[in-house]
Amino acid sequence: MAYNVGPLNELITQFERLPSIGRKTAQRLAFYILSQPKERAERFASALTEAREKVHLCDKCQCLTEFDTCPICTDEQRDRSTICVVEDPKAVMVFEKTQEYKGLYHVLHGTISPLDGIGPDQLKIKELMTRLADGSVKEVIMATNPTVEGEATASYISRLIKPMGIRITRLAYGIPVGGDLEYADSVTLTRALEGRNDI
Amino acid sequence: MAYNVGPLNELITQFERLPSIGRKTAQRLAFYILSQPKERAERFASALTEAREKVHLCDKCQCLTEFDTCPICTDEQRDRSTICVVEDPKAVMVFEKTQEYKGLYHVLHGTISPLDGIGPDQLKIKELMTRLADGSVKEVIMATNPTVEGEATASYISRLIKPMGIRITRLAYGIPVGGDLEYADSVTLTRALEGRNDI
Repeated sequence: MAYNVGPLNELITQFERLPSIGRKTAQRLAFYILSQPKERAERFASALTEAREKVHLCDKCQCLTEFDTCPICTDEQRDRSTICVVEDPKAVMVFEKTQEYKGLYHVLHGTISPLDGIGPDQLKIKELMTRLADGSVKEVIMATNPTVEGEATASYISRLIKPMGIRITRLAYGIPVGGDLEYADSVTLTRALEGRNDI
Repeated sequence: MAYNVGPLNELITQFERLPSIGRKTAQRLAFYILSQPKERAERFASALTEAREKVHLCDKCQCLTEFDTCPICTDEQRDRSTICVVEDPKAVMVFEKTQEYKGLYHVLHGTISPLDGIGPDQLKIKELMTRLADGSVKEVIMATNPTVEGEATASYISRLIKPMGIRITRLAYGIPVGGDLEYADSVTLTRALEGRNDI
Protein backbone atom coordinates (compact mmCIF):
# COMPACT_ATOMS: atom_id res chain seq x y z
CA MET A 1 0.00 0.00 0.00
CA ALA A 2 1.49 3.30 -1.08
CA TYR A 3 -0.32 5.31 1.55
CA ASN A 4 1.75 4.42 4.57
CA VAL A 5 2.45 7.13 7.13
CA GLY A 6 4.65 5.42 9.75
CA PRO A 7 3.74 7.36 12.91
CA LEU A 8 0.06 7.36 11.94
CA ASN A 9 0.04 3.60 11.39
CA GLU A 10 1.75 3.06 14.72
CA LEU A 11 -0.90 5.16 16.46
CA ILE A 12 -3.69 3.22 14.72
CA THR A 13 -2.05 -0.05 15.81
CA GLN A 14 -1.84 1.13 19.41
CA PHE A 15 -5.53 2.07 19.46
CA GLU A 16 -6.45 -1.21 17.80
CA ARG A 17 -4.75 -3.18 20.58
CA LEU A 18 -7.18 -1.82 23.14
CA PRO A 19 -10.07 -4.13 24.02
CA SER A 20 -13.28 -3.60 22.01
CA ILE A 21 -11.58 -1.19 19.57
CA GLY A 22 -11.64 -2.49 15.98
CA ARG A 23 -9.65 -1.36 12.95
CA LYS A 24 -12.17 1.26 11.79
CA THR A 25 -12.58 2.82 15.22
CA ALA A 26 -8.79 2.82 15.70
CA GLN A 27 -8.40 4.71 12.42
CA ARG A 28 -11.08 7.21 13.39
CA LEU A 29 -9.49 7.82 16.81
CA ALA A 30 -6.02 8.25 15.30
CA PHE A 31 -7.25 10.75 12.71
CA TYR A 32 -9.10 12.53 15.49
CA ILE A 33 -5.88 12.88 17.51
CA LEU A 34 -4.15 14.38 14.47
CA SER A 35 -6.96 16.89 14.05
CA GLN A 36 -6.59 18.13 17.62
CA PRO A 37 -4.13 20.70 19.06
CA LYS A 38 -0.72 19.29 19.94
CA GLU A 39 -1.39 19.89 23.66
CA ARG A 40 -4.30 17.42 23.60
CA ALA A 41 -2.09 14.61 22.33
CA GLU A 42 0.63 15.48 24.84
CA ARG A 43 -1.81 15.56 27.73
CA PHE A 44 -3.23 12.20 26.68
CA ALA A 45 0.30 10.76 26.41
CA SER A 46 1.34 11.97 29.85
CA ALA A 47 -1.95 10.70 31.34
CA LEU A 48 -1.04 7.25 30.01
CA THR A 49 2.47 7.16 31.43
CA GLU A 50 1.54 8.87 34.70
CA ALA A 51 -1.33 6.51 35.41
CA ARG A 52 0.81 3.49 34.64
CA GLU A 53 3.72 4.79 36.74
CA LYS A 54 1.98 6.26 39.76
CA VAL A 55 -1.00 3.95 40.26
CA HIS A 56 -0.34 0.66 42.03
CA LEU A 57 -2.02 -1.62 44.54
CA CYS A 58 -2.81 -0.49 48.08
CA ASP A 59 -0.66 -2.50 50.51
CA LYS A 60 -3.78 -3.27 52.58
CA CYS A 61 -6.88 -3.72 50.40
CA GLN A 62 -5.06 -4.30 47.06
CA CYS A 63 -7.24 -1.70 45.36
CA LEU A 64 -5.63 0.85 43.01
CA THR A 65 -4.06 3.93 44.59
CA GLU A 66 -1.27 6.48 44.15
CA PHE A 67 -0.26 6.11 47.81
CA ASP A 68 1.24 3.21 49.77
CA THR A 69 -2.06 2.72 51.57
CA CYS A 70 -5.24 3.94 49.89
CA PRO A 71 -7.38 6.77 51.33
CA ILE A 72 -10.17 4.32 52.21
CA CYS A 73 -7.85 2.10 54.28
CA THR A 74 -6.35 5.11 56.09
CA ASP A 75 -9.72 6.85 56.70
CA GLU A 76 -10.31 6.73 60.45
CA GLN A 77 -14.04 7.35 59.95
CA ARG A 78 -14.61 3.98 58.28
CA ASP A 79 -15.80 0.86 60.03
CA ARG A 80 -12.69 -1.30 60.38
CA SER A 81 -14.65 -4.34 61.55
CA THR A 82 -16.20 -5.01 58.12
CA ILE A 83 -14.43 -6.01 54.89
CA CYS A 84 -16.24 -6.23 51.57
CA VAL A 85 -14.46 -8.67 49.22
CA VAL A 86 -14.75 -7.78 45.51
CA GLU A 87 -13.28 -9.06 42.25
CA ASP A 88 -11.80 -5.86 40.87
CA PRO A 89 -11.25 -2.15 41.58
CA LYS A 90 -14.22 -1.26 39.38
CA ALA A 91 -16.50 -2.89 41.98
CA VAL A 92 -15.02 -0.62 44.67
CA MET A 93 -15.93 2.38 42.50
CA VAL A 94 -19.51 1.12 42.21
CA PHE A 95 -19.87 0.55 45.97
CA GLU A 96 -18.39 3.96 46.79
CA LYS A 97 -20.89 5.60 44.46
CA THR A 98 -23.77 4.36 46.63
CA GLN A 99 -22.25 6.26 49.61
CA GLU A 100 -23.93 3.65 51.83
CA TYR A 101 -21.11 1.28 52.63
CA LYS A 102 -18.81 2.53 55.39
CA GLY A 103 -16.51 -0.48 55.89
CA LEU A 104 -13.27 -1.46 54.17
CA TYR A 105 -12.66 -3.43 50.97
CA HIS A 106 -10.46 -6.22 49.73
CA VAL A 107 -9.84 -6.63 46.00
CA LEU A 108 -9.10 -10.17 44.79
CA HIS A 109 -8.10 -9.16 41.23
CA GLY A 110 -9.99 -11.98 39.57
CA THR A 111 -11.88 -15.15 40.37
CA ILE A 112 -10.85 -18.77 40.64
CA SER A 113 -11.15 -20.07 37.09
CA PRO A 114 -9.38 -23.39 36.42
CA LEU A 115 -10.13 -23.16 32.68
CA ASP A 116 -8.12 -19.93 32.47
CA GLY A 117 -5.41 -21.36 34.72
CA ILE A 118 -6.30 -19.05 37.61
CA GLY A 119 -6.12 -20.76 40.98
CA PRO A 120 -6.39 -19.29 44.51
CA ASP A 121 -2.66 -18.46 44.51
CA GLN A 122 -3.09 -16.01 41.61
CA LEU A 123 -5.63 -14.01 43.62
CA LYS A 124 -5.05 -11.74 46.62
CA ILE A 125 -6.48 -14.31 49.05
CA LYS A 126 -3.33 -14.68 51.14
CA GLU A 127 -3.36 -10.89 51.67
CA LEU A 128 -6.98 -11.12 52.87
CA MET A 129 -6.15 -13.86 55.37
CA THR A 130 -3.28 -11.73 56.72
CA ARG A 131 -5.68 -8.83 57.31
CA LEU A 132 -8.14 -11.10 59.15
CA ALA A 133 -5.49 -12.63 61.39
CA ASP A 134 -5.52 -9.99 64.17
CA GLY A 135 -9.20 -10.60 65.01
CA SER A 136 -10.36 -6.99 64.52
CA VAL A 137 -12.63 -7.87 61.60
CA LYS A 138 -16.10 -9.09 62.61
CA GLU A 139 -17.77 -9.48 59.23
CA VAL A 140 -16.67 -10.31 55.69
CA ILE A 141 -19.17 -9.49 52.93
CA MET A 142 -18.57 -11.64 49.85
CA ALA A 143 -19.38 -9.33 46.94
CA THR A 144 -17.92 -11.25 44.00
CA ASN A 145 -20.02 -11.17 40.83
CA PRO A 146 -23.12 -13.40 40.64
CA THR A 147 -21.45 -15.73 38.11
CA VAL A 148 -20.31 -19.34 38.40
CA GLU A 149 -16.69 -18.26 38.99
CA GLY A 150 -17.74 -15.51 41.41
CA GLU A 151 -19.82 -17.98 43.43
CA ALA A 152 -17.07 -20.61 43.48
CA THR A 153 -14.53 -18.04 44.64
CA ALA A 154 -16.88 -16.77 47.36
CA SER A 155 -17.51 -20.25 48.71
CA TYR A 156 -13.80 -21.16 48.56
CA ILE A 157 -12.87 -18.10 50.63
CA SER A 158 -15.81 -18.68 52.99
CA ARG A 159 -14.47 -22.14 53.80
CA LEU A 160 -11.08 -20.63 54.65
CA ILE A 161 -12.55 -17.94 56.90
CA LYS A 162 -15.24 -19.94 58.70
CA PRO A 163 -12.88 -21.58 61.26
CA MET A 164 -11.87 -18.07 62.41
CA GLY A 165 -15.35 -17.37 63.78
CA ILE A 166 -15.92 -14.34 61.56
CA ARG A 167 -19.41 -13.64 60.25
CA ILE A 168 -19.57 -14.19 56.48
CA THR A 169 -22.36 -12.68 54.39
CA ARG A 170 -23.21 -12.61 50.69
CA LEU A 171 -24.97 -9.85 48.73
CA ALA A 172 -28.71 -10.50 48.37
CA TYR A 173 -29.97 -11.90 45.10
CA GLY A 174 -33.21 -10.55 43.71
CA ILE A 175 -34.89 -8.51 41.04
CA PRO A 176 -33.14 -5.24 40.22
CA VAL A 177 -34.85 -2.06 41.40
CA GLY A 178 -36.66 -0.38 38.51
CA GLY A 179 -36.53 -3.58 36.49
CA ASP A 180 -39.54 -5.26 34.89
CA LEU A 181 -40.52 -8.75 36.07
CA GLU A 182 -41.07 -9.65 32.43
CA TYR A 183 -37.33 -9.48 31.84
CA ALA A 184 -36.18 -11.25 35.01
CA ASP A 185 -34.65 -14.66 34.27
CA SER A 186 -36.13 -17.58 36.20
CA VAL A 187 -33.02 -18.22 38.32
CA THR A 188 -33.04 -14.64 39.56
CA LEU A 189 -36.78 -14.79 40.16
CA THR A 190 -36.43 -18.03 42.13
CA ARG A 191 -33.74 -16.39 44.30
CA ALA A 192 -35.95 -13.33 44.77
CA LEU A 193 -38.78 -15.59 45.94
CA GLU A 194 -36.50 -17.47 48.32
CA GLY A 195 -35.22 -14.25 49.80
CA ARG A 196 -38.68 -12.62 50.17
CA ASN A 197 -39.25 -10.37 53.18
CA ASP A 198 -42.29 -9.45 55.26
CA ILE A 199 -43.64 -5.98 54.57
CA MET B 1 -16.55 10.05 46.35
CA ALA B 2 -13.81 8.57 48.48
CA TYR B 3 -12.46 6.39 45.71
CA ASN B 4 -10.57 8.96 43.70
CA VAL B 5 -7.23 7.98 42.21
CA GLY B 6 -5.97 11.16 40.51
CA PRO B 7 -3.86 9.74 37.66
CA LEU B 8 -6.47 7.06 36.96
CA ASN B 9 -9.27 9.63 36.77
CA GLU B 10 -7.20 11.78 34.44
CA LEU B 11 -6.63 8.80 32.14
CA ILE B 12 -10.35 7.96 32.16
CA THR B 13 -11.13 11.60 31.30
CA GLN B 14 -8.67 11.55 28.40
CA PHE B 15 -10.22 8.39 26.97
CA GLU B 16 -13.71 9.80 27.47
CA ARG B 17 -12.87 12.85 25.37
CA LEU B 18 -12.30 10.69 22.30
CA PRO B 19 -15.22 10.53 19.88
CA SER B 20 -17.62 7.57 20.39
CA ILE B 21 -16.00 6.61 23.73
CA GLY B 22 -18.43 6.84 26.64
CA ARG B 23 -17.77 6.85 30.39
CA LYS B 24 -17.98 3.07 30.83
CA THR B 25 -15.72 2.31 27.88
CA ALA B 26 -13.26 4.96 29.04
CA GLN B 27 -13.12 3.29 32.47
CA ARG B 28 -12.61 -0.12 30.93
CA LEU B 29 -9.80 1.13 28.68
CA ALA B 30 -8.07 2.93 31.56
CA PHE B 31 -8.21 -0.16 33.79
CA TYR B 32 -6.92 -2.19 30.87
CA ILE B 33 -3.90 0.12 30.49
CA LEU B 34 -3.14 -0.31 34.21
CA SER B 35 -3.28 -4.08 33.85
CA GLN B 36 -0.70 -4.07 31.04
CA PRO B 37 3.11 -3.96 31.29
CA LYS B 38 4.59 -0.49 31.70
CA GLU B 39 6.16 -0.69 28.21
CA ARG B 40 2.72 -0.93 26.59
CA ALA B 41 1.59 2.35 28.14
CA GLU B 42 4.87 4.01 27.22
CA ARG B 43 4.68 2.84 23.63
CA PHE B 44 1.12 4.08 23.36
CA ALA B 45 2.13 7.44 24.82
CA SER B 46 5.03 7.90 22.43
CA ALA B 47 2.83 6.84 19.48
CA LEU B 48 0.47 9.67 20.43
CA THR B 49 3.13 12.37 20.63
CA GLU B 50 5.12 11.11 17.64
CA ALA B 51 2.08 10.97 15.37
CA ARG B 52 0.99 14.45 16.41
CA GLU B 53 4.51 15.87 16.02
CA LYS B 54 5.73 14.19 12.86
CA VAL B 55 2.61 13.89 10.75
CA HIS B 56 1.52 17.00 8.86
CA LEU B 57 0.03 17.93 5.51
CA CYS B 58 1.80 17.18 2.22
CA ASP B 59 2.74 20.48 0.56
CA LYS B 60 1.20 19.25 -2.72
CA CYS B 61 -1.88 17.08 -2.13
CA GLN B 62 -2.58 18.15 1.51
CA CYS B 63 -2.82 14.53 2.59
CA LEU B 64 -1.10 13.40 5.81
CA THR B 65 2.59 12.57 5.61
CA GLU B 66 5.81 12.60 7.63
CA PHE B 67 7.72 14.20 4.74
CA ASP B 68 7.48 17.63 3.08
CA THR B 69 5.91 16.03 0.03
CA CYS B 70 4.13 12.69 0.42
CA PRO B 71 5.37 9.47 -1.26
CA ILE B 72 2.39 9.46 -3.64
CA CYS B 73 3.14 12.96 -4.93
CA THR B 74 6.84 12.17 -5.36
CA ASP B 75 6.26 8.74 -6.98
CA GLU B 76 7.41 9.06 -10.59
CA GLN B 77 5.36 5.98 -11.57
CA ARG B 78 2.05 7.68 -10.94
CA ASP B 79 -0.07 9.39 -13.54
CA ARG B 80 0.46 13.13 -12.95
CA SER B 81 -2.29 14.13 -15.37
CA THR B 82 -5.12 12.94 -13.08
CA ILE B 83 -6.08 14.30 -9.67
CA CYS B 84 -8.72 12.66 -7.49
CA VAL B 85 -10.30 15.19 -5.11
CA VAL B 86 -11.41 13.73 -1.77
CA GLU B 87 -12.78 15.08 1.49
CA ASP B 88 -10.29 13.59 3.93
CA PRO B 89 -7.13 11.46 4.20
CA LYS B 90 -9.21 8.40 5.09
CA ALA B 91 -10.61 8.45 1.54
CA VAL B 92 -7.05 8.32 0.17
CA MET B 93 -6.45 5.21 2.27
CA VAL B 94 -9.59 3.60 0.83
CA PHE B 95 -8.61 4.40 -2.77
CA GLU B 96 -5.06 3.13 -2.28
CA LYS B 97 -6.42 -0.15 -0.94
CA THR B 98 -8.07 -0.87 -4.29
CA GLN B 99 -4.63 -0.67 -5.96
CA GLU B 100 -6.49 0.42 -9.10
CA TYR B 101 -6.09 4.16 -9.07
CA LYS B 102 -2.70 5.34 -10.34
CA GLY B 103 -3.17 9.12 -10.38
CA LEU B 104 -2.60 11.75 -7.71
CA TYR B 105 -4.92 13.02 -4.98
CA HIS B 106 -6.01 16.28 -3.47
CA VAL B 107 -7.48 16.36 0.04
CA LEU B 108 -9.96 19.16 0.78
CA HIS B 109 -10.17 18.51 4.54
CA GLY B 110 -13.91 18.94 4.71
CA THR B 111 -16.86 20.04 2.64
CA ILE B 112 -18.60 23.34 2.17
CA SER B 113 -21.16 23.46 4.96
CA PRO B 114 -22.61 26.90 5.68
CA LEU B 115 -24.49 25.60 8.73
CA ASP B 116 -21.16 24.64 10.35
CA GLY B 117 -19.59 27.87 9.19
CA ILE B 118 -17.33 26.13 6.68
CA GLY B 119 -16.96 28.05 3.44
CA PRO B 120 -14.65 27.43 0.46
CA ASP B 121 -11.84 29.39 2.15
CA GLN B 122 -11.64 26.87 5.02
CA LEU B 123 -10.98 24.05 2.54
CA LYS B 124 -7.81 23.35 0.53
CA ILE B 125 -9.41 24.62 -2.70
CA LYS B 126 -6.88 27.41 -3.29
CA GLU B 127 -4.09 24.79 -3.11
CA LEU B 128 -5.94 22.68 -5.70
CA MET B 129 -6.26 25.61 -8.11
CA THR B 130 -2.53 26.32 -7.73
CA ARG B 131 -1.76 22.72 -8.71
CA LEU B 132 -3.99 22.95 -11.77
CA ALA B 133 -2.50 26.25 -12.97
CA ASP B 134 0.43 24.82 -14.94
CA GLY B 135 -1.83 22.89 -17.34
CA SER B 136 -0.28 19.44 -16.76
CA VAL B 137 -3.47 18.01 -15.24
CA LYS B 138 -5.96 16.69 -17.81
CA GLU B 139 -8.65 15.22 -15.55
CA VAL B 140 -10.03 15.96 -12.10
CA ILE B 141 -12.13 13.20 -10.50
CA MET B 142 -14.52 14.59 -7.91
CA ALA B 143 -14.66 11.91 -5.24
CA THR B 144 -16.32 13.75 -2.38
CA ASN B 145 -18.85 11.72 -0.39
CA PRO B 146 -22.31 11.14 -1.92
CA THR B 147 -23.96 13.49 0.61
CA VAL B 148 -25.61 16.87 0.14
CA GLU B 149 -22.46 18.68 1.31
CA GLY B 150 -20.20 16.45 -0.80
CA GLU B 151 -22.30 17.11 -3.91
CA ALA B 152 -22.40 20.85 -3.29
CA THR B 153 -18.64 20.99 -2.81
CA ALA B 154 -18.04 18.95 -5.97
CA SER B 155 -20.21 21.21 -8.06
CA TYR B 156 -18.69 24.36 -6.55
CA ILE B 157 -15.18 23.20 -7.46
CA SER B 158 -16.33 22.00 -10.88
CA ARG B 159 -17.56 25.50 -11.70
CA LEU B 160 -14.14 26.90 -10.76
CA ILE B 161 -12.25 24.39 -12.89
CA LYS B 162 -14.47 24.28 -15.96
CA PRO B 163 -13.08 27.48 -17.57
CA MET B 164 -9.60 25.89 -17.53
CA GLY B 165 -10.67 23.24 -20.07
CA ILE B 166 -9.85 20.32 -17.74
CA ARG B 167 -12.05 17.21 -17.90
CA ILE B 168 -14.08 16.85 -14.69
CA THR B 169 -15.63 13.52 -13.69
CA ARG B 170 -17.64 12.24 -10.74
CA LEU B 171 -17.62 8.75 -9.21
CA ALA B 172 -20.45 6.58 -10.55
CA TYR B 173 -23.53 6.14 -8.39
CA GLY B 174 -25.13 2.73 -8.22
CA ILE B 175 -25.85 -0.31 -6.16
CA PRO B 176 -22.90 -1.57 -4.10
CA VAL B 177 -21.27 -4.81 -5.28
CA GLY B 178 -22.42 -7.72 -3.12
CA GLY B 179 -25.38 -5.73 -1.84
CA ASP B 180 -28.98 -6.85 -1.92
CA LEU B 181 -31.46 -4.85 -4.03
CA GLU B 182 -33.92 -5.22 -1.19
CA TYR B 183 -31.81 -2.85 0.91
CA ALA B 184 -31.03 -0.30 -1.79
CA ASP B 185 -32.73 3.03 -1.18
CA SER B 186 -34.81 4.39 -4.02
CA VAL B 187 -32.53 7.36 -4.75
CA THR B 188 -29.55 5.02 -5.22
CA LEU B 189 -31.65 2.65 -7.31
CA THR B 190 -32.82 5.52 -9.52
CA ARG B 191 -29.19 6.57 -10.06
CA ALA B 192 -28.22 2.97 -10.82
CA LEU B 193 -30.98 2.84 -13.44
CA GLU B 194 -29.92 6.14 -14.98
CA GLY B 195 -26.34 4.96 -15.17
CA ARG B 196 -27.14 1.53 -16.60
CA ASN B 197 -24.67 0.06 -19.09
CA ASP B 198 -24.99 -2.32 -22.06
CA ILE B 199 -23.75 -5.83 -21.35
